[in-house]
Amino acid sequence: MGCSVSETQKLIMLPGPTNVPPRVMRAMLKPLIGHRGPEFKQVMAQVLGKTKKVFETKKDLYILTTSGTGATECALQNITDDGDKIIVNVCGFFSERLAEAVKNYGGTPITINSEWGKAPRTEDFRKALKANPDAKAVAVVYNETSTGVTVRSLQEIGKLCADQNVLLMVDAISILGGDKLPVDDWNVDLCVTASQKCLMCPPGLAFVTVSQKAWEKIESKKHHRSFYLDLPMYRKFMETGYTPFTPAVSLFYALNEACDMILEEGLQARYERHRICAEAVYNSMEALGLDLMAEPESRSHTVAAIACPDGIDDAKLRELIRVKYGIDLGGSLEKWKGKMFRIGVMGSVGSPEIMSTVAAIASASHDLGFKANISEALEAARKTLSRLPARMN
Amino acid sequence: MGCSVSETQKLIMLPGPTNVPPRVMRAMLKPLIGHRGPEFKQVMAQVLGKTKKVFETKKDLYILTTSGTGATECALQNITDDGDKIIVNVCGFFSERLAEAVKNYGGTPITINSEWGKAPRTEDFRKALKANPDAKAVAVVYNETSTGVTVRSLQEIGKLCADQNVLLMVDAISILGGDKLPVDDWNVDLCVTASQKCLMCPPGLAFVTVSQKAWEKIESKKHHRSFYLDLPMYRKFMETGYTPFTPAVSLFYALNEACDMILEEGLQARYERHRICAEAVYNSMEALGLDLMAEPESRSHTVAAIACPDGIDDAKLRELIRVKYGIDLGGSLEKWKGKMFRIGVMGSVGSPEIMSTVAAIASASHDLGFKANISEALEAARKTLSRLPARMN
Repeated sequence: MGCSVSETQKLIMLPGPTNVPPRVMRAMLKPLIGHRGPEFKQVMAQVLGKTKKVFETKKDLYILTTSGTGATECALQNITDDGDKIIVNVCGFFSERLAEAVKNYGGTPITINSEWGKAPRTEDFRKALKANPDAKAVAVVYNETSTGVTVRSLQEIGKLCADQNVLLMVDAISILGGDKLPVDDWNVDLCVTASQKCLMCPPGLAFVTVSQKAWEKIESKKHHRSFYLDLPMYRKFMETGYTPFTPAVSLFYALNEACDMILEEGLQARYERHRICAEAVYNSMEALGLDLMAEPESRSHTVAAIACPDGIDDAKLRELIRVKYGIDLGGSLEKWKGKMFRIGVMGSVGSPEIMSTVAAIASASHDLGFKANISEALEAARKTLSRLPARMN
Repeated sequence: MGCSVSETQKLIMLPGPTNVPPRVMRAMLKPLIGHRGPEFKQVMAQVLGKTKKVFETKKDLYILTTSGTGATECALQNITDDGDKIIVNVCGFFSERLAEAVKNYGGTPITINSEWGKAPRTEDFRKALKANPDAKAVAVVYNETSTGVTVRSLQEIGKLCADQNVLLMVDAISILGGDKLPVDDWNVDLCVTASQKCLMCPPGLAFVTVSQKAWEKIESKKHHRSFYLDLPMYRKFMETGYTPFTPAVSLFYALNEACDMILEEGLQARYERHRICAEAVYNSMEALGLDLMAEPESRSHTVAAIACPDGIDDAKLRELIRVKYGIDLGGSLEKWKGKMFRIGVMGSVGSPEIMSTVAAIASASHDLGFKANISEALEAARKTLSRLPARMN
């Protein structure tokens, strides 16, 4: 795992895009082909088979040429009639944006609000469903990228939705492929992710799964407002093995290769690697003397939210780390502006990425006058990372 | 110009995607970067400056991570309120699809129908505007990819729309960068294209220009139904130099390189090269004994529609050309199913691409029993292509 720092010149430890392994980058160089010919049909069939394994789904899966937001729009817009109530958990920047987007699709968002840094509980969803028996769907941001919080009760929420015959849409953009999400087992009707996060591809592709229950709602929808994101159109074309609109072929090559790497590693091993890398980050940052932003039980294994040293703005800290130490870190958003930074622990990460990131944060915070416990931090990272299995390559 | 056949293994003479020069392919290998950092801001500024030169516009221009259809949707959906009349020329598969899409956006398409193979005339638009003084916009498919027809009166239509204060939206997907389209001079309010046609990039990016007149309508629009394709959102983010959603960064690198090649060649030289290459195709196909599908005055310089030899289905002919001669050609659609094939003359085309394509069509049609005038066809192509300027590289 892990691409060498020298080859990417710079390490991007962002909550997306992430470091793309050279093997995946090189795949993009395959010659372009027509997207209506037999070669693309074959690539499409391969990619679909592999991504369905990663999503642990036997349901329909569509690959869009959009960012993750495009796929979220595709999932929600296709199930939302004007005035439909959609229950959305709001616990950070991206979930707030999702609730906002629901309005654009004609829906009425019913929000479940949690403090930033905390996850909503199953009980909150139960209450919201009880208070809104006419709700058409629950939309959950499984991993809130702005706060580094994972909704660990997702499986329970899925059961709740299944029991009450309400659709469950999951925004898994910053987590799928990096933490557990068996789409079928957990009763997820529409699952969305994007290529440039834990799937370690360049950005430009996004994914939507669609269950039979979701199809029933889609088919009964009164007005289909989009053409480019119309799911019935995708289904119609996919029956012949193609996409309705020109796909980003080079990115399909990259995805095909990335899926091979993911399945070679194995999903459970992959989740375990993400968990250990994230723990190494959390343990080392605490040892360094920094606070963690997310409550312990909801800390994400794919994006770590770290409080800045007292009196140091995250933009200043990150700029120093970027320029002097060659590592890109994620910034703070909205409510937490200036107070924290984020470390992406996604896809192609292992000891080289984590150790050098911890070292860079330690050096930069020391440079800026913070009394950092540098050796303790490094030792905490090393110790945690020593639990990683022997490297395969 | 032109990438060597051996390097792409196969020549794709499709009406998109097209052959991507190795220089552009290699640009995709640049390391990924964060799309909220200073490096991407710089790439974005460079790419925007260059693409605006290619569009000959000083207006706003946005680059979306979608196919061309996504950008068409972005342009039309943002100016269409429920019930708005949009005048659309229908003269082939893609313009028909555009009229259909207008309905999804809540609009009422007023169609100007022409026979397949023919272009609408300025007079048709004048009449349609007179009969529908409440029309909000005219949507023109500048180059109908399914029939190889270019609407040569676009400049006049632009003047008409400007005089009557009606918006002009132009679908220039299969032509921009290969034939003349000075967006500002011709009064185009919204111009749309995609990366994988004459701009010779891989697919995955698309473009929309927006005039001040278009902004006025966009701002007065009652319901913005999309989030991912919402132009005000793009404008807001672009003011800080970024895209609202994660862009396909690797494709931006490719586009940056392709724009350099386009501007090094020069727009007029580029249009002239496309014109000569297209004429070489038309002259050679006629010499071979095949009919041309488009009326002479409207024949496209970027996609040539050729009638199949009598009694030979295009699928059979193209399959032989693909497998035996390694060249991909475009197929027939809908009304013309089985009767014709299409040759993309887009982006990276010159003598090697055209001569080998003509030779392959000659051989394959001969193989299938057609009495082809092979040497006449080759000579017609050679003679026309001899007018190409000395090659730059």
